[in-house]
Amino acid sequence: MSDERTDLLRAHIRDVPDFPKEGILFKDITPLLASPKAFVTALDLFAEAWAGEHLDAVVGIESRGFIFGAALAARIGVGFVPVRKPGKLPAATERVEYELEYGKDAVEIHLDALQTGDRVVLLDDLIATGGTAAAALELIRRRGAVPVGAGFVIELAFLAGREKLSDVSITSLLTY
Amino acid sequence: MSDERTDLLRAHIRDVPDFPKEGILFKDITPLLASPKAFVTALDLFAEAWAGEHLDAVVGIESRGFIFGAALAARIGVGFVPVRKPGKLPAATERVEYELEYGKDAVEIHLDALQTGDRVVLLDDLIATGGTAAAALELIRRRGAVPVGAGFVIELAFLAGREKLSDVSITSLLTY
Repeated sequence: MSDERTDLLRAHIRDVPDFPKEGILFKDITPLLASPKAFVTALDLFAEAWAGEHLDAVVGIESRGFIFGAALAARIGVGFVPVRKPGKLPAATERVEYELEYGKDAVEIHLDALQTGDRVVLLDDLIATGGTAAAALELIRRRGAVPVGAGFVIELAFLAGREKLSDVSITSLLTY
Repeated sequence: MSDERTDLLRAHIRDVPDFPKEGILFKDITPLLASPKAFVTALDLFAEAWAGEHLDAVVGIESRGFIFGAALAARIGVGFVPVRKPGKLPAATERVEYELEYGKDAVEIHLDALQTGDRVVLLDDLIATGGTAAAALELIRRRGAVPVGAGFVIELAFLAGREKLSDVSITSLLTY
């Protein structure tokens, strides 16, 4: 996407060098959140991306995905379902592990968070290598729900994360 | 507060025994989030609580405070500012430590997140002993901003957390 609205978003992304470790140029979304106009514009673009779809819920990934996911869910009038790191959700959960550069991580969803056939979109602030998003989509499918799409404010295209999500429609507001 | 709307919210809070550890009865808000009607009702009640105030931002505490804080900010058309655990915010931060039952914890805010004189509300899902909320309010004041109020979906009144926030107006949607 590229137009006046995405230019507005891009102007509110800050580059932070050497975070979280040396050599990484971090894309900081907090200036976007601090601007009511930019934040609402991001939600507008997500809402428009799935305007023709019937949706039952927005699934957001801890923790910046909560920010966009919950605001979008409230905006379009559907429920919000959190996907969290292991041990954070209080009731019975399903877990999917995924590979990191060094080691493994995992995400969880409540067993009763979604109903069979629920049509959902997955939201996170950023897609890098795509491991977390792919695991979250697997959780959605294991609960019998249908991932209609996955949305990210930022896509780091050089990390090719979308190749791990080849079976779902992807909406990235900004691509680097 | 107690009326039809808070009854609706209360019906969407689930008690989970022995989480995060044995003997604790955890108040789970995920059923409330999963219900579009209950989630929007919670946002309605927060929006009404400060309807007469000029606000510049909503400050939300990681990570369930992000869910309500960001959705409220988008709803009332102001910026959203995250308060996070140490090391999570990428740019220059200010930090406030606070005492836990055993040990210490801390929260951080970006130095440029708020301007002097900004009028803000602090949001989190729950107030227990009040340590985190008091530290977040201290961060807001150190940045020169004015905490107009603090809002919580759930107040555990028997832990007397509001005594730590005696200098700010508190809105709790549900009290236990």
